[in-house]
Amino acid sequence: MATPFASEGSSLSMRALTGALLFSRPYPIHFFNPSPPMSDRTVWWEAGKVRMIDQRLLPLDYVIADFDAVPDVARAITEMVVRGAPAIGATAGFGMALAAQQSRAETTRGLLADLRQAKETLDAARPTAVNLAWATARLLLLAEALAGDGASIERIQAALLVEAQRLADQDVEINQRMGRHGAAVIPQNANILHHCNTGSLAAVDIGTALGVVRAAHEANKNIHVWVDETRPRLQGARLTAWELMRDGIPMHLIADNAAGLLMRQRKVDVVLYGADRVAANGDVANKIGSYKLAVVAKENGIPCYSVVPTSTIDLDLPDGDHIPIEERGWEEVVMVGDTQIAPDDVPVYNPAFDVTPHRYLTGIITEEGVCYPPFTESLAAAKARAEARIRAAQGRPL
Amino acid sequence: MATPFASEGSSLSMRALTGALLFSRPYPIHFFNPSPPMSDRTVWWEAGKVRMIDQRLLPLDYVIADFDAVPDVARAITEMVVRGAPAIGATAGFGMALAAQQSRAETTRGLLADLRQAKETLDAARPTAVNLAWATARLLLLAEALAGDGASIERIQAALLVEAQRLADQDVEINQRMGRHGAAVIPQNANILHHCNTGSLAAVDIGTALGVVRAAHEANKNIHVWVDETRPRLQGARLTAWELMRDGIPMHLIADNAAGLLMRQRKVDVVLYGADRVAANGDVANKIGSYKLAVVAKENGIPCYSVVPTSTIDLDLPDGDHIPIEERGWEEVVMVGDTQIAPDDVPVYNPAFDVTPHRYLTGIITEEGVCYPPFTESLAAAKARAEARIRAAQGRPL
Repeated sequence: MATPFASEGSSLSMRALTGALLFSRPYPIHFFNPSPPMSDRTVWWEAGKVRMIDQRLLPLDYVIADFDAVPDVARAITEMVVRGAPAIGATAGFGMALAAQQSRAETTRGLLADLRQAKETLDAARPTAVNLAWATARLLLLAEALAGDGASIERIQAALLVEAQRLADQDVEINQRMGRHGAAVIPQNANILHHCNTGSLAAVDIGTALGVVRAAHEANKNIHVWVDETRPRLQGARLTAWELMRDGIPMHLIADNAAGLLMRQRKVDVVLYGADRVAANGDVANKIGSYKLAVVAKENGIPCYSVVPTSTIDLDLPDGDHIPIEERGWEEVVMVGDTQIAPDDVPVYNPAFDVTPHRYLTGIITEEGVCYPPFTESLAAAKARAEARIRAAQGRPL
Repeated sequence: MATPFASEGSSLSMRALTGALLFSRPYPIHFFNPSPPMSDRTVWWEAGKVRMIDQRLLPLDYVIADFDAVPDVARAITEMVVRGAPAIGATAGFGMALAAQQSRAETTRGLLADLRQAKETLDAARPTAVNLAWATARLLLLAEALAGDGASIERIQAALLVEAQRLADQDVEINQRMGRHGAAVIPQNANILHHCNTGSLAAVDIGTALGVVRAAHEANKNIHVWVDETRPRLQGARLTAWELMRDGIPMHLIADNAAGLLMRQRKVDVVLYGADRVAANGDVANKIGSYKLAVVAKENGIPCYSVVPTSTIDLDLPDGDHIPIEERGWEEVVMVGDTQIAPDDVPVYNPAFDVTPHRYLTGIITEEGVCYPPFTESLAAAKARAEARIRAAQGRPL
């Protein structure tokens, strides 16, 4: 047989499954509110726990999940209770703060060992998302710096919680600035094609590509959004449609397959998506299907932008071929809620991401402005500006 | 709001739905057999009725549906109990034979009026599939010719049933020949990417693009098939996976979104799909998503073929822009079995087909050989050869 990729283990008998993966709840339900306030954040710290909206249950159920152990926070990331690169970053930050709070170490050296262990656990939860390791490194570095200055365990614990909170708050501020920069490239009356979910659910609030959509809508640009459903996990159908309908932004849901027809019929003016990792040359790893969209957009002369915080840019990676691509389980393709859509024991290959080579992208929208080719220069400059800003902010009180 | 396409009526409250569209059964179940013999045809005539496998229930249930009235046959086509261009053609042929059998006309003139009415009802069932009108025209022309020769009502009724049966038998023979021609262009050890279902379920038996897959497998080419799920109706996941697994042909199911990654990674050697209508210049209307595949294949230097019987070629249409594109209901996107995947009242746009401009196709495989550019010449020649063959066959006994 020619090149099989999925392991034999990925085709267990599906009849054996009970219940639906999208709708399973492996934790107690703390409250249920089908119409939550719109200012809710996706992830936050409360009463010594990391709390988050369970995105697997939307749009039909709105449930808040609590996690009070680092391995459970990592599992929530792996199982996509929380997803979206910026939200994963914020969650990992709170996960590090949680690790510090719960450490039983009696020396700062022991605390640092616990934090390194927590970083390792958290970093392994999703291999493609660079924000994860970026956030855990930021908190570990702070702890190491404080320990080097002779700070007490209590002082380090408190500082890590403040820093995790600051990371979440900065994410919101960053998304506001990304939205303003991005809205400038959206034409009046634009039909925007959007992939996956990059909204307030993917970030701490507002969102990346959907943050640009929100900013363009608020700037009265009279936009309309084609929301692709984003198989297999249906983040577009479940989450993006839910966010846009809540905000009253005009949209239609489409099957992923319909995007080509719309582009060829000139019913798309701009394609927007986020990214889980951007290489130094502008190659972008994002939700599976992004690459196809970018190729067909370019073929039809339609601009295509990836919208990311600079924390998603990984200057250590020369190009997209070096980005690890996560493969996920067969059940994401075969089970939709309780419905089995393929024969028992069907072999499945389920890559979660693909890489869009930079030549298909018109620009990369960041909180530091829109980066244009040559990306090697523009991304490095944006990253440098952002890091200077973070360094300056760490000197200021919150 | 910029260009909305789906009507407001297409966003009824989904909570009101009971049961699953894919699994509804609007007729009595006649037998249930989860492991049918492999030589079963998809549609056939038996005891005065048109019988067919209900493709909406596969792969979990195997059910035969009976239809004994022309409007019900048309409804079975519209609701996709039967689907696939050649199978629709054969069904329409049996539908015309049924109309002749059930006519209460006392003159051949009255019979012809009933047949014209039946043709109109059947032709309206799916607007994009040219085989439908091709088959009904073939039977109506035969009836008109016989009436012109002074044949009796009984003679015309009998002749139409023989002709409908011959149409179905010829479809099987045509698919065998298409498979042989197509297998010649499939490389040894090929990874084939296949869209929608074009197998024995889409035809009377064997299939078009899947007929080529079968022939390549039987020729020991050591092939492997990437079966895309083909949202929104999931013909790939439900039907193609079922057919290939029954035949023991190596395959993996993928989300439609994964095709781009596989092509860029050189894990696809050839893309195959069918067509619902081919214009004179080689533009091809096929299941939504085909266009995106062809563009990305071309971008990666991967050959892409449409596989069709010559009855699918419509020389009266100069190009693909003249092919009507069917739009279908919101529920096909929003409901997967019993599972609602998007918020209540979400607006949906659901086009069933797209057009691949001929410049993206390497060739069009027919029962008369592989047509290469310039398609305007090669398609007309193939069509002429096929029509000469049909004329010759009509002089022979079955």
